[in-house]
Amino acid sequence: MEAVLKVGGSLAEYPSSLKKLCAKLASFAKDHKIVIVPGGGRFADVVRDLDRTYGLSNTVAHEMAVLAMDQFGLFLSAFISDSYVSYSLEKAKNLPRGMLPIFLPSKFIFREDPLEHSWDVTSDSIAAYIAGTLHAEKLVLVTDVDGIFTENPKKSLNAELIRELSAKQLLSWNKRTCVDRMLPKILLKTKLDCYVVSGMYPERIQAILENDRSIYTRITV
Amino acid sequence: MEAVLKVGGSLAEYPSSLKKLCAKLASFAKDHKIVIVPGGGRFADVVRDLDRTYGLSNTVAHEMAVLAMDQFGLFLSAFISDSYVSYSLEKAKNLPRGMLPIFLPSKFIFREDPLEHSWDVTSDSIAAYIAGTLHAEKLVLVTDVDGIFTENPKKSLNAELIRELSAKQLLSWNKRTCVDRMLPKILLKTKLDCYVVSGMYPERIQAILENDRSIYTRITV
Repeated sequence: MEAVLKVGGSLAEYPSSLKKLCAKLASFAKDHKIVIVPGGGRFADVVRDLDRTYGLSNTVAHEMAVLAMDQFGLFLSAFISDSYVSYSLEKAKNLPRGMLPIFLPSKFIFREDPLEHSWDVTSDSIAAYIAGTLHAEKLVLVTDVDGIFTENPKKSLNAELIRELSAKQLLSWNKRTCVDRMLPKILLKTKLDCYVVSGMYPERIQAILENDRSIYTRITV
Repeated sequence: MEAVLKVGGSLAEYPSSLKKLCAKLASFAKDHKIVIVPGGGRFADVVRDLDRTYGLSNTVAHEMAVLAMDQFGLFLSAFISDSYVSYSLEKAKNLPRGMLPIFLPSKFIFREDPLEHSWDVTSDSIAAYIAGTLHAEKLVLVTDVDGIFTENPKKSLNAELIRELSAKQLLSWNKRTCVDRMLPKILLKTKLDCYVVSGMYPERIQAILENDRSIYTRITV
């Protein structure tokens, strides 16, 4: 497996970009062996919101957030031609070249239950765990910002894109970033190369798949 | 099976009422053989919203809306003691008295695929189909209004509660009500007695289970 691509749910807020991205993902699958793992998007936001109002147990919130990924995966399948939605990692792994698997993680994650039940674990960590299980060469987190910044780029003009940092640095960095807090730990455990990249510019994702330079953050281990 | 109770997702907007209702549902299960079918609530609203923006295919929208019911079912389980969340109708049917099954419909509905894929089919019709399959005596649609009104009670002061109407009347009535458009057709097919009742007053649900008079709409077949 070359890469697991997590497509962040926030991209659904940009319909024309998301549709363009989906068309590109289908074309990447012709040249690269990749698996899509969906983010949770607005469905996960509803879970967060209900959690804030009701104070859910960590386990119920975790399970609902994982189901949110299934939801968004089903949604993505509507825009990726030759995609194949699967609850089975085996099937997702062994599709013929050209077919793009979208892995719905609920059954696998509920069965294996490998991750802490907390909001430190979101679809980033789940995608990293899946990439580790698949022995993928790369984990690509496709989001709506250019990568990891020194500060929140949606709030600060001084925010600078970080081209490369180590998982250890990220771990020691006591700051909220666009990736979840558990991610660096899982990267260190799985020895997985990770890229954070904007889905608004699919050519950057292609560059990652082809080991070219472009605009993104690389998290090294 | 005495009754299938569909708990409408809109009740999540009233946290203290919903929690009280959930406690009552657990106590009803001690005296009555019932199954909970969850509504879709805010998760289904997200699907509607994405459908409006993206124009999803009917099938993808339908499947996402069914997953929304799983989500809300998981949520309800957090507040119903002695509840048992199940994807299996057999298991849900055969729980010992006192345990309250919450049926997550996705696997069953995806496998059987018995209903039209359109927004005329929501969790009301899905609950009716499940009640029919279980040969339940009653279908109880628990919602956030007192029943079916002559007009939208949230918009008109002249709205009057209808105490009883036939499925045929409802079918011929070319108006939006608090139940979905497919429901009367399924009731006619399954010969199911149906009640629309407010979850804000759990004693009304109890009255239905005990064949007493109270405030609700009965849909006869």
